[in-house]
Amino acid sequence: MLGSSPDFLYIAGLLGVIVFAISGALAAAEKHLDILGFILFAAITGIGGGTVRDLILGVDVFWVTDALYLQVCVAAGVLTYFLAPQFVARQRLLLWMDAMGLALFSVLGTSKAYALGVDLLVACAMGMITTTFGSVIRDILSDREPVLLGPEIYVTAALAGAMSYLLLFHVLGDSGVSIAIAVVIAFAVRAAAMVWDLRLPKFSRY
Amino acid sequence: MLGSSPDFLYIAGLLGVIVFAISGALAAAEKHLDILGFILFAAITGIGGGTVRDLILGVDVFWVTDALYLQVCVAAGVLTYFLAPQFVARQRLLLWMDAMGLALFSVLGTSKAYALGVDLLVACAMGMITTTFGSVIRDILSDREPVLLGPEIYVTAALAGAMSYLLLFHVLGDSGVSIAIAVVIAFAVRAAAMVWDLRLPKFSRY
Amino acid sequence: MLGSSPDFLYIAGLLGVIVFAISGALAAAEKHLDILGFILFAAITGIGGGTVRDLILGVDVFWVTDALYLQVCVAAGVLTYFLAPQFVARQRLLLWMDAMGLALFSVLGTSKAYALGVDLLVACAMGMITTTFGSVIRDILSDREPVLLGPEIYVTAALAGAMSYLLLFHVLGDSGVSIAIAVVIAFAVRAAAMVWDLRLPKFSRY
Repeated sequence: MLGSSPDFLYIAGLLGVIVFAISGALAAAEKHLDILGFILFAAITGIGGGTVRDLILGVDVFWVTDALYLQVCVAAGVLTYFLAPQFVARQRLLLWMDAMGLALFSVLGTSKAYALGVDLLVACAMGMITTTFGSVIRDILSDREPVLLGPEIYVTAALAGAMSYLLLFHVLGDSGVSIAIAVVIAFAVRAAAMVWDLRLPKFSRY
Repeated sequence: MLGSSPDFLYIAGLLGVIVFAISGALAAAEKHLDILGFILFAAITGIGGGTVRDLILGVDVFWVTDALYLQVCVAAGVLTYFLAPQFVARQRLLLWMDAMGLALFSVLGTSKAYALGVDLLVACAMGMITTTFGSVIRDILSDREPVLLGPEIYVTAALAGAMSYLLLFHVLGDSGVSIAIAVVIAFAVRAAAMVWDLRLPKFSRY
Repeated sequence: MLGSSPDFLYIAGLLGVIVFAISGALAAAEKHLDILGFILFAAITGIGGGTVRDLILGVDVFWVTDALYLQVCVAAGVLTYFLAPQFVARQRLLLWMDAMGLALFSVLGTSKAYALGVDLLVACAMGMITTTFGSVIRDILSDREPVLLGPEIYVTAALAGAMSYLLLFHVLGDSGVSIAIAVVIAFAVRAAAMVWDLRLPKFSRY
């Protein structure tokens, strides 16, 4: 059974960094960058959101005290550089990696903030920041419309993850189970949006 | 009479967040975003500048310890989403909201920094950061020319507010009156620039 | 002989801020901004990277405690505003100023971080952040392709500076000599890339 052991959280966090780093490196492939560009995009996308979260929460930035996160980003950048040509559907893969990262980061970011005793709304905001800042910087640097502004259900999925976690925390306690269920919910919402092309009503009353 | 009571500063700060948040939500209306996009733009514009100021000053980020700021941004985003169609001149309204936010934030940001004992120039810089970062992020995300780079008197007005406050502080002391007068000066400079289309000479000696 | 005295580091740091500030002001000239725009671009480019480095390292932001850095940026912005028309090859000058800043900041940023006891890879990352954030913000604000994403050897040169310093540190110790040699190496790599138009192989296997 899953406990809320530090190990479980640590591995889930690393996994989030890895999938976001790969999505960043795949964006570098679209831009035809060199290998350092791949590493750079992998690092910015993988650790950017968590960096802003930690700065705002006033805690030590996670990758400064534990270099493994940065090593993982470098590895993701290098491996993607050599393996990307193998993938026929890179754009599609980027979206699925991004969806997995979204699910993990929205829940883990919310959970880290809430454990520090902030308000529920602030904890949700931290989940959103962890999820979106890395990919927003990736998209601005690669001159793409930030995925967060697209018509797709993106922030909604992250919010579903954050809110499910906070609800489950009060029902089940701060356990790995609460986190795992919330991650699955966030991923399911985003996946449904991608597969069936769902979107919220846009503002169009001009 | 106005005292420099925490209450007066607190309410002025909230007011600044509200008008900037509305200007952000109106920018989301221009982009035809969904309701979460409105909330996001409201929050980034409303609290972005103060967040960067607090991080650089090394103090607790204001909205992490007091969730009311974030609640106000959410409310501004939601209300603007439903009320924006009522406004026939949204673009104009955005500029006036932005001018009010500019006047409040340039003075309050300078005042908060100066109270921590930094140099006059650094205090001015903090006023500028508080004023401009939120709207710069809003403009970059919505792919508009940052208002700060436009030919209009924008930074000049913020600077007028910051410098008036520092001058008044040394003449009248750290009172609500110093703040109120400086806010009026900054607003008057920006309003004059908007109404009469004033601008500083541009660099054009090519 | 050069010692690793605080004075030497302090002057090298100021020099880095000055050349980056001038490169920022020259970018403002390209955009035909007014004099405040020049100051703003000078300040963002001159102190932006070091600000992000200090925030992530969790130390006091360097220019908040010592206003000289900001004064130097203001002076660089004002002087460039009046002198820029004298320079026939402003675009070229911007690139050389940027190269000098790159060499200084990549080494000094790495050195500051490493002195705080972080991992080698994290120290390198801090050197890259110090070098690149200011110019990335300058380029995004002025709507240019970030130099960091260009095909030129830019990050490579910064990395050469960071890695040379870390190597020399372990051979020669934390002396001014280690810093000076590493700065020369970083500058030489960037200069060679500019003069002979060198570049790393791009990812182009579509």
